[in-house]
Amino acid sequence: MGIVKADITVSADGYLSGPDQSLEDPFGRGGLRLFEWEDDQANSPGFQEGPTGAFVMGRNMFGPVRGQWDLSWTGWDDEPPYHAPVYVLTHHPRDPVTMKGGTTFHFVTAGIESALERAREAAGDLDVQIAGGANTLRQYLAAGLLDELVLHLAPFTLGDGERLLDGLGALTFDQVESSSSPAVTHLKYRVRR
Amino acid sequence: MGIVKADITVSADGYLSGPDQSLEDPFGRGGLRLFEWEDDQANSPGFQEGPTGAFVMGRNMFGPVRGQWDLSWTGWDDEPPYHAPVYVLTHHPRDPVTMKGGTTFHFVTAGIESALERAREAAGDLDVQIAGGANTLRQYLAAGLLDELVLHLAPFTLGDGERLLDGLGALTFDQVESSSSPAVTHLKYRVRR
Repeated sequence: MGIVKADITVSADGYLSGPDQSLEDPFGRGGLRLFEWEDDQANSPGFQEGPTGAFVMGRNMFGPVRGQWDLSWTGWDDEPPYHAPVYVLTHHPRDPVTMKGGTTFHFVTAGIESALERAREAAGDLDVQIAGGANTLRQYLAAGLLDELVLHLAPFTLGDGERLLDGLGALTFDQVESSSSPAVTHLKYRVRR
Repeated sequence: MGIVKADITVSADGYLSGPDQSLEDPFGRGGLRLFEWEDDQANSPGFQEGPTGAFVMGRNMFGPVRGQWDLSWTGWDDEPPYHAPVYVLTHHPRDPVTMKGGTTFHFVTAGIESALERAREAAGDLDVQIAGGANTLRQYLAAGLLDELVLHLAPFTLGDGERLLDGLGALTFDQVESSSSPAVTHLKYRVRR
């Protein structure tokens, strides 16, 4: 069986998005800078990871729609980058949406454990990735359901926004791998139970 | 001339001390764990640093006395670990206190720039280290007076306490060095002006 993992870029002050998120600026002010290291991955390769068979994400990561669904919203991309089933946490039921490239969005109203169970089943022997956002990741961390957290630490502060590690009390990690380049430091933490 | 530097251990969630600091527990609940990596420095050696000729610290780092001085308080140790002049930021004047081992505490009521100026003069060609705590470090960072920040990132969360990088807006660092062991990740940031 695979593991349950997350892979997130945060600023030096711990934010995974900047202030004033909006439809035009979904990562908030300055937030797109978080991903600049990915343009230079030859120099900051990160870690070898097992393949991902399914994803879980919060509704706010799926899109900006709140309350009842606007069925015309089918995610940020015509061909989403997941190429696998994606379980979206929501309070509002909706039929699955199949997109180009092998991504199907399933909408789960029964909570984080149910979503993870369905994702594990779909993933088979492969890993399940908790894609985000901050609130969803914190819920899985707080519930002790995350096995591995890969952090990419960018060398600047955002000053405000959404913090990944916030209000989680005392968690202990085993730091199993790290590497860095001038653009980013990669850290692989195993969450101790 | 030397540089102005800081060298601080923080938890994975960015705290340099835990919750509920007190005279008995000056690093707060769980805070002493931050320094466990120092017991195993052979395996996590950190960086080569230039020698430090003088220190600056906040009053709360010097001791728990608030308001008017209790002159019987002369710091946490009979022989403090600084072995150099230490400039303590305070609103309450006090004569210098000379301790064993070459440490003299000077009390500066004229603000952070004045304290730094005096420390630079005392340090000559050597570096000035801003020793802490969080509030003092944030003031020097916010004022653009810090050249280099060495962070030792410990692989656990504290959940609450004092955060080093908080409310500082957007700062950009050049990551000039990094190294890590299972116990800690060392990061050397140059603060970009």
